[in-house]
Amino acid sequence: MDHTTAILLEVFIIFVAAQVGGQVARLVRLPNVVGEIVAGCMVGPSVLGWVTPSEPLEVLSEIGVVLLLFSVGLETRVEDLKRVGGSAFAVGVLGVLIPFVCGTLWAHSIGPDWPRSLFIAAAFVATSAGITARVLKQLGVLQRAESRVILGAAVIDDILAMLLLGVVTALQAGGQLRVGSLLIVLAEAIGFVLVIGWLGTRVMRRVAAWLDWPSDSLSPLALVLAMCLGLAWLATNFGLAAIIGAFLAGMIASETRQHAQLEVQTRPLLVLLTPFFFVLTGAKVELRELASGESLWLLSVATVLALLTKLAGGWLGALKLGARGALNVGVGMMPRGEVGVVIAALGLSAGVFSNQIYAVIVAMSLLTSIVAPPILAGLLKSGGETEHLRDDGGIACEDERPATESRPGKRPRHGF
Amino acid sequence: MDHTTAILLEVFIIFVAAQVGGQVARLVRLPNVVGEIVAGCMVGPSVLGWVTPSEPLEVLSEIGVVLLLFSVGLETRVEDLKRVGGSAFAVGVLGVLIPFVCGTLWAHSIGPDWPRSLFIAAAFVATSAGITARVLKQLGVLQRAESRVILGAAVIDDILAMLLLGVVTALQAGGQLRVGSLLIVLAEAIGFVLVIGWLGTRVMRRVAAWLDWPSDSLSPLALVLAMCLGLAWLATNFGLAAIIGAFLAGMIASETRQHAQLEVQTRPLLVLLTPFFFVLTGAKVELRELASGESLWLLSVATVLALLTKLAGGWLGALKLGARGALNVGVGMMPRGEVGVVIAALGLSAGVFSNQIYAVIVAMSLLTSIVAPPILAGLLKSGGETEHLRDDGGIACEDERPATESRPGKRPRHGF
Repeated sequence: MDHTTAILLEVFIIFVAAQVGGQVARLVRLPNVVGEIVAGCMVGPSVLGWVTPSEPLEVLSEIGVVLLLFSVGLETRVEDLKRVGGSAFAVGVLGVLIPFVCGTLWAHSIGPDWPRSLFIAAAFVATSAGITARVLKQLGVLQRAESRVILGAAVIDDILAMLLLGVVTALQAGGQLRVGSLLIVLAEAIGFVLVIGWLGTRVMRRVAAWLDWPSDSLSPLALVLAMCLGLAWLATNFGLAAIIGAFLAGMIASETRQHAQLEVQTRPLLVLLTPFFFVLTGAKVELRELASGESLWLLSVATVLALLTKLAGGWLGALKLGARGALNVGVGMMPRGEVGVVIAALGLSAGVFSNQIYAVIVAMSLLTSIVAPPILAGLLKSGGETEHLRDDGGIACEDERPATESRPGKRPRHGF
Repeated sequence: MDHTTAILLEVFIIFVAAQVGGQVARLVRLPNVVGEIVAGCMVGPSVLGWVTPSEPLEVLSEIGVVLLLFSVGLETRVEDLKRVGGSAFAVGVLGVLIPFVCGTLWAHSIGPDWPRSLFIAAAFVATSAGITARVLKQLGVLQRAESRVILGAAVIDDILAMLLLGVVTALQAGGQLRVGSLLIVLAEAIGFVLVIGWLGTRVMRRVAAWLDWPSDSLSPLALVLAMCLGLAWLATNFGLAAIIGAFLAGMIASETRQHAQLEVQTRPLLVLLTPFFFVLTGAKVELRELASGESLWLLSVATVLALLTKLAGGWLGALKLGARGALNVGVGMMPRGEVGVVIAALGLSAGVFSNQIYAVIVAMSLLTSIVAPPILAGLLKSGGETEHLRDDGGIACEDERPATESRPGKRPRHGF
């Protein structure tokens, strides 16, 4: 009980820090998410030390980002994703290949041997769908082609990144690459996404027509939340990120009659829980290790490399959307977020990364997450392709319009 | 990351178990909360072993019950509490005194010395406001006099129980009772409740008239959630339960213009998070220690004693409400819930309780929590004092009527 109440204080601090950070970011016309990450850095161990990442906070953070991707899935139809399948595939593959090759060459150039360099490069590959999804959702542009390409590419990206991590981990111990078992892992992950995403939505579409939820006791919300948590866990069993499962669950739920009502009900959950994800992401940066000229130089180069290689991959893959659309996709793929942090932590615990490299990779992941959202927001707002763009905070939740059955292609979103 | 995903499975199991348990309870016409606690017992270490109480789950559970009491506070006005202040005070005091005296005598009669007996009796004193509040909320009777007396008494009860725990802990080591410091503790706790509850609502009432929330960015929900988390933590600093602070925060928020909208927005939070509290409460019972005739006998006597003494205290204190109203109050005070479990855990770790006594007290706490809700629901439904009682599940959330400014005294509640 005592420890629980100690964490209650951290919960309070994280929640307030997110609100304050979001408001300050808004004042200087940056996306809320940037303010929340920076606030996390401030209250975290590096500066104020009011919040220390711990298991309970990690779980809250994980549930927060799972719900965020679920809500993004709720606004995404599998048909829309299929229509941009080719571009999404190209973006996913090129967005992994280009950063990986360039990352390996850079890493080797600063010292580590080839196996270690490959591991470091794996951190350049990661894409954090959560951060871009938040910006897209906040601007109300999830229905645009670029957004769908980014979301589809994030799924493919996650599959490839998982494979790559398997490969580079095997190479560290000088171990043999077992191509057969890697192919099985690949087939399983692809199978999971296809079966859940394609079959799940088809079944739900058929079932939703004649299935009226037992509305007075078991609410639709409880049912889809159970599905969301279940698929999030299942995804991790196939080596994928939990958010991939949550995103698929959201897509399945978007086929129900109640999807608009579910969107409204999901918003308060996002208000409470997503701050934990963004603040904790910020809290993980270690400023002390970066306090040398050499570290800062490494960080600068790594960040520029991470930004440009991902931009190149996304841009080349999405050229079908026109130069401007491809640029939006490239920028949208930039944030490494918590995925980069996780790979860095794996590298540190496996003895592959030095403390300095670890701190640089973590800081690079966060810098890309802070740099990309304002650029993306600026590009999307000046694009003029979408009407009704609202310069809105990410946490407004007062919009309780009755749910409508129609699915407007482009309607303004109110934060979450 | 790996451990986090392992807990994701437990999160999923807890959530599904709560839904299944709630539905089964509904089928046999018991309140959902009973089904959720029993489901917790089933998935917990005693039976299936799928869920092991751990710190992250405790934190989710704590946030769940904090939000539950916040939502109860949202439906409670401080004026209404004041009107029943006398009865609430009498119920609080008698509901502590009678179980404590009888509990001490019983505990001494089965073996332990006087100091230990006093500690055991402290577990008889606890009242779990969460369990009764859930039943009252579900039946839509939070506006009735009995409900207000129960809620007011729960606050007084918590203050007295905290004091008592301080006294019996001091007595264990054969230590001196420092009356002066106990009086300071008492004054601080009472001061906290009065200042926050009385002054907070007055300030909010005055402020709410001319304060229009910055509605397009920082939502009212985010503001009141911050207040809820902050006061929950602050309450623990004054030795009170976190839920007391959350309840006060809800009462303050009920003075805003947006209280009806806040109620609607709070429901999805309850759907997601309160199951953790009830399932985890159930998961804490240790059936193995109870598998002897002697233990079962002790458990039976302890449970009957706990039920009757609390009933007597509540009934005597609330006689002003008439015999039937007093009976409702007495039954409403019966559940010991997690508070009894916490005191038992304190006793075990302090070496005051044997494993057997610990298991008996925990099982007693849960049995009172399982027995009381159906009786209370039956009494309230047959009472006929309130119109519009709905035999509703505790988790329905489809009711998204636009928020109304008027505050109907008795309107049907739809579960959460």
